[in-house]
Amino acid sequence: MSEHSGAATRTLVTIICEAVLESRLLKDLDALGAPGWTISEARGSGSRGVRASDWDNNSNIRVEVVCGRPVAEKIMQYMQVHYYADFAMICFLSDVEVLRLHKF
Amino acid sequence: MSEHSGAATRTLVTIICEAVLESRLLKDLDALGAPGWTISEARGSGSRGVRASDWDNNSNIRVEVVCGRPVAEKIMQYMQVHYYADFAMICFLSDVEVLRLHKF
Amino acid sequence: MSEHSGAATRTLVTIICEAVLESRLLKDLDALGAPGWTISEARGSGSRGVRASDWDNNSNIRVEVVCGRPVAEKIMQYMQVHYYADFAMICFLSDVEVLRLHKF
Repeated sequence: MSEHSGAATRTLVTIICEAVLESRLLKDLDALGAPGWTISEARGSGSRGVRASDWDNNSNIRVEVVCGRPVAEKIMQYMQVHYYADFAMICFLSDVEVLRLHKF
Repeated sequence: MSEHSGAATRTLVTIICEAVLESRLLKDLDALGAPGWTISEARGSGSRGVRASDWDNNSNIRVEVVCGRPVAEKIMQYMQVHYYADFAMICFLSDVEVLRLHKF
Repeated sequence: MSEHSGAATRTLVTIICEAVLESRLLKDLDALGAPGWTISEARGSGSRGVRASDWDNNSNIRVEVVCGRPVAEKIMQYMQVHYYADFAMICFLSDVEVLRLHKF
């Protein structure tokens, strides 16, 4: 990613999961150091997780967090350990560029 | 993108198009090997595609697929060949990082 | 990002902000040269911006623009100068890959 004056790299964490997990997930994110989050409603279908066949047509949420890389990796590891075995969830990281004055 | 223990790179395919295409698109994605998808509602406006002026204020969907690069490229090529001429659609790819135990 | 035949890199601008800013923001994007945009509804919470505590549980929007890097940087700079001091807003850039025939 090219750098321009004032630009800094942060990590975007995206979590897509069953809507029923929302309040539990937000408590986790807060404890893990997420500086904030954005939630949008979604629908999904996929061969992801043990409850994959139950996921079809379920109400899902898409949670996004912009943070430093260490917190992002901690969140992704936590999600895997605590949710992947029992819930349909997908979590992925990507690099994004913000302006330095924009604090995270 | 820095690698940490257990991390792997996948490709995120994002398709934004008219909501009326949903069922047709999901059949395509299944046939092209997408392991799953997430759909959210959206609104759009843009000079994209031949029906651009009709796209304003239309109901749109945002479809996301996380998969390996070959499937992602196949999806993007297919969208271009089958939809770009006749529908307002935007499709783009980006690299994302997942944990290895998370199968796609 | 690996290049395949016909692929080109563009920049995805993501803006998340209070829904009340929508019409003003779209006028800005048009003036700044954005070729189009996609809007989806969202909810957010975070320590971002001076009105952070007011942002919780507010109605937010997520605006996405795919464009060339110069326009993307102009948009991000403009958002910072005109909105960051007075509104809860987050803006970030990421690289995405499109097919060349797909004009932006």
